[in-house]
Amino acid sequence: MNYGAVAHMPDQRYCYCLYPGRFLIRLQTGRDDLQEVKLHYRDKYIPLRLHDTRKSVHMNRVAQDHFHDYYEAEVDIDVVCLRYYFELRGFNGERMFFSNCRILSAPPQDIDRMYDLPQNLREIERFAVPQWAQNKVVYQIFPSRFATDQNVQEKKWYKAPIKSADDLQGNLRGIINRLDYLYALGVDIVYMTPIFQSNSSHKYDTIDYYTIDAGFGTTDDLIELVQRAHSMGMRVMLDAVFNHTAPEFFAFADLEKNWETSEYRDWYYCQGKPRRPKMIGVKPNYKCFSYFGGMPKLNLENPDTAQYVIDVALYWLRTAGIDGWRLDVGDEVSHYFWQKFRTAVKREFPEALIVGEIWHYAGDFLQGDTWDTVMNYPFRNAAMDFVAEASISATQFVNELGFIRGNVNNACYPILWNLIGSHDTPRALHCCGGNKNKLRLLAAMQLLLPGMPFLYYGDEVGLTGGPDPDCRRGMLWDADRQDCELFAYYQRLIRLRKKIEPFLELGLSRMTADDDTGVVAFETDACCILFHGADGSVQLPQYSGINEQITQCCFDGCLGPYQAAAFLK
Amino acid sequence: MNYGAVAHMPDQRYCYCLYPGRFLIRLQTGRDDLQEVKLHYRDKYIPLRLHDTRKSVHMNRVAQDHFHDYYEAEVDIDVVCLRYYFELRGFNGERMFFSNCRILSAPPQDIDRMYDLPQNLREIERFAVPQWAQNKVVYQIFPSRFATDQNVQEKKWYKAPIKSADDLQGNLRGIINRLDYLYALGVDIVYMTPIFQSNSSHKYDTIDYYTIDAGFGTTDDLIELVQRAHSMGMRVMLDAVFNHTAPEFFAFADLEKNWETSEYRDWYYCQGKPRRPKMIGVKPNYKCFSYFGGMPKLNLENPDTAQYVIDVALYWLRTAGIDGWRLDVGDEVSHYFWQKFRTAVKREFPEALIVGEIWHYAGDFLQGDTWDTVMNYPFRNAAMDFVAEASISATQFVNELGFIRGNVNNACYPILWNLIGSHDTPRALHCCGGNKNKLRLLAAMQLLLPGMPFLYYGDEVGLTGGPDPDCRRGMLWDADRQDCELFAYYQRLIRLRKKIEPFLELGLSRMTADDDTGVVAFETDACCILFHGADGSVQLPQYSGINEQITQCCFDGCLGPYQAAAFLK
Repeated sequence: MNYGAVAHMPDQRYCYCLYPGRFLIRLQTGRDDLQEVKLHYRDKYIPLRLHDTRKSVHMNRVAQDHFHDYYEAEVDIDVVCLRYYFELRGFNGERMFFSNCRILSAPPQDIDRMYDLPQNLREIERFAVPQWAQNKVVYQIFPSRFATDQNVQEKKWYKAPIKSADDLQGNLRGIINRLDYLYALGVDIVYMTPIFQSNSSHKYDTIDYYTIDAGFGTTDDLIELVQRAHSMGMRVMLDAVFNHTAPEFFAFADLEKNWETSEYRDWYYCQGKPRRPKMIGVKPNYKCFSYFGGMPKLNLENPDTAQYVIDVALYWLRTAGIDGWRLDVGDEVSHYFWQKFRTAVKREFPEALIVGEIWHYAGDFLQGDTWDTVMNYPFRNAAMDFVAEASISATQFVNELGFIRGNVNNACYPILWNLIGSHDTPRALHCCGGNKNKLRLLAAMQLLLPGMPFLYYGDEVGLTGGPDPDCRRGMLWDADRQDCELFAYYQRLIRLRKKIEPFLELGLSRMTADDDTGVVAFETDACCILFHGADGSVQLPQYSGINEQITQCCFDGCLGPYQAAAFLK
Repeated sequence: MNYGAVAHMPDQRYCYCLYPGRFLIRLQTGRDDLQEVKLHYRDKYIPLRLHDTRKSVHMNRVAQDHFHDYYEAEVDIDVVCLRYYFELRGFNGERMFFSNCRILSAPPQDIDRMYDLPQNLREIERFAVPQWAQNKVVYQIFPSRFATDQNVQEKKWYKAPIKSADDLQGNLRGIINRLDYLYALGVDIVYMTPIFQSNSSHKYDTIDYYTIDAGFGTTDDLIELVQRAHSMGMRVMLDAVFNHTAPEFFAFADLEKNWETSEYRDWYYCQGKPRRPKMIGVKPNYKCFSYFGGMPKLNLENPDTAQYVIDVALYWLRTAGIDGWRLDVGDEVSHYFWQKFRTAVKREFPEALIVGEIWHYAGDFLQGDTWDTVMNYPFRNAAMDFVAEASISATQFVNELGFIRGNVNNACYPILWNLIGSHDTPRALHCCGGNKNKLRLLAAMQLLLPGMPFLYYGDEVGLTGGPDPDCRRGMLWDADRQDCELFAYYQRLIRLRKKIEPFLELGLSRMTADDDTGVVAFETDACCILFHGADGSVQLPQYSGINEQITQCCFDGCLGPYQAAAFLK
């Protein structure tokens, strides 16, 4: 038995409240190391002689990563504190116990040597996410390049942007006019990158958080956009760029002008009067996003500054009725600020969705006290490695997703933003070397696996592009440029997603891989979804009950290159 | 190589700020599994073509537990974000890399597949503890049984308490009169269990947080106690019992009287008008400490209630000038409340020490945002198992301490309250079956190892007692009842502690065990301390430089049964 791989800690990964009275307890062990795991538990305070509260329950293996298994059990309790420990049965008859971070050869007798779960504490700290967010499809729009009502020359619109700053005159009216398109595709949430006043085309350097950029439109346009989206059953999310501003933002501008007397000294991290560097590679004398003098970093430790941006977030929730915020550079801003932010936002808008940008394992931010969920870049890494690069095997792909499943709280796991590309990465089609079969498989993965599918505008009609700014090309609107078959495939995938969503949550899910065929299978008690991550064809397994194939080809009992298929059992 | 045992997460255990610009990075691996570990790091945002910021550093093994090694490196950086990964060299020539929670066979090239350390975030979240608390000795007083200025019959005073409620008329004046005694012993911090108005002798069921219990004295007595202690260089800490109150506390009393109209409905967790159970074993219709109807649990989710008890904490810091709070049942109160509590207390009293009661691994509470440190019951478990019970080996003892060293932040590790007994456990001497040699070794362990030695009143003069209430006997004040030799031994130990404290922090510490002899060695570059946890005698190793033996016997080149010795190199 691999004792060094066994882990359980009293935190939101391993032990938490699902809803009052129901708790999830998770254990990490070595991979394929155990035959059975049991959870033993009892009331801390009631002596056995008064009432024997001891119980035990079989734990289910819910995920595997490269070197670990993850077991879970749910327990219904009504106690002050629960005491518990684990029983580990190996394949060779070995039987050990894991209690209070220790491996024991016999069950612990002293209840103070067991794990402790204070019920009230864990209930208070329950990770609560908006229920409406379950099984929704997000669509990311880069507003300056998505759609416009202006007269923009087709030649200019479709020219790949040379510089990040190239403006195509996309605007909110353009988006409003295309809501039908998004509705037809099946989108549930429209997420727009920043739309506030800024001198850049990407708008990540905000000059005024209270003004819609004049090139994009007006506050009324945003209100209209949200109302029309809502009337169609869609939600709208905006980009909260609170890590930094533009230098033209009033507080920084005041510092540049009136350093000695400015009342905004504590709004940034300046060492002396700010001097914007004239060339790249010279570090500014103030903290920035990266080292870009054009993006000075706000000091959100300053309560005034923190309150200012929190007020901005509340203002647009109130004024435009938006449904949530995506937090730009979220992982470079302290948990302390995000805790304040969450408290203020959720107090007034408990249903607002808060999604952090982070490119890494995000456990630290997924404790229930800061964000609801994150942009799932680790999903993208795994999917690209497996499908686009073919640099990892099917098993390795499953292991990568297993790591996420085993290490994040089950409240946010189903709403992780599963992306295969964004405005910050080369497009998926580009990464696939233009192979649309591969793109189709990637789309099936993001749309049919647990998580919140996150589509980057244009992927669904075959838009391609390399690294920024090329990944931000003008959206393909002319029918002769769009891959309509691909669009229909996305539509079918989304429809299928909605059909299978009640089944995704049922029972236990299992993910398995067959490295000989390159097939990954995601199964629950009610459905099975297959992803074929290789060239060639493979025979489908036999399943009883109805089944439905969702690739573009006809169903003939085979999975072709990079095809996926879904079955209801 | 045991890949399943390798772990590194972006949290306060594994990656944190020591002070602005300096960071500690820790890695867990399998025990005795690696020959060398290196940390590789670079600036996230500066492209290598502009400036090659890559560096690497050897990591030191700082601790071992039963199945893991813990490696650490400190790095000085000035970046926006640091990217890093680990190089693992096995004994058989195997060379692997650990990056972004993945084992890799080659160093990662893509910086987004490395670990990420946002410098500003980690600096903001730095775990800061009061510097005065380093190397202090705490002395716990149970006021009703420690000392009195009243005329209490000797016979009554020394009779072991039959009931928890037995009152011996101990009081603050008694403590004031005994400050000289504590000073002579070498105590730095006097910590008293609760002293506010209450009907019990233990006072853990508070009726009025603003009134000193009349049996104990007055606010003026407390002020005098603190002032006199301060004038002698000692500090004073009180017990914060905020999890629950007495039923006579005004808010609960109002609920019992005016349930329908009471404005305190949200101050507790009541299901209907509270009914105090008449017999033990019947659960009250309100949440309690344990299920004791006499200790109703406060609802600290209610901002009014939270503010009320925070005001109490601030009031006594302001009014009496106390130096900190020990938090009763700290682990059954949410982190959310303690974050508020810490923020409010530290804003006005940055030097106040906040110590939580928890009997388990406390990583969740030692993230820098709630408590400064905890009562180190895992230390007591290990010491009792090794010395009192002889149920674990010297190696296992070292492993138990190694687990703590490897899993808590280095800011709080040196100030963990290392106890061998408290008012909630049988006394150490009792656990040792009256064997004073064993008690001496336990005292040496708590006083000479890293951590804040925590003495329970009377241990130093041979006071014994079984489980509560027997562990709360009247303090031995008559010379013919005190073990004066033991007292002198404690004095010497404390003096030695002060002498070696500059050396405890120097260089790297190593803890090793010899199971043949039962000797545990704690070594730094400057000193070596030996603990002999068995009967019989063992030859001392040869050390150059001065050395000093601190047991009660004369030094003769041997360590006798349960003796300890300290050497300066």
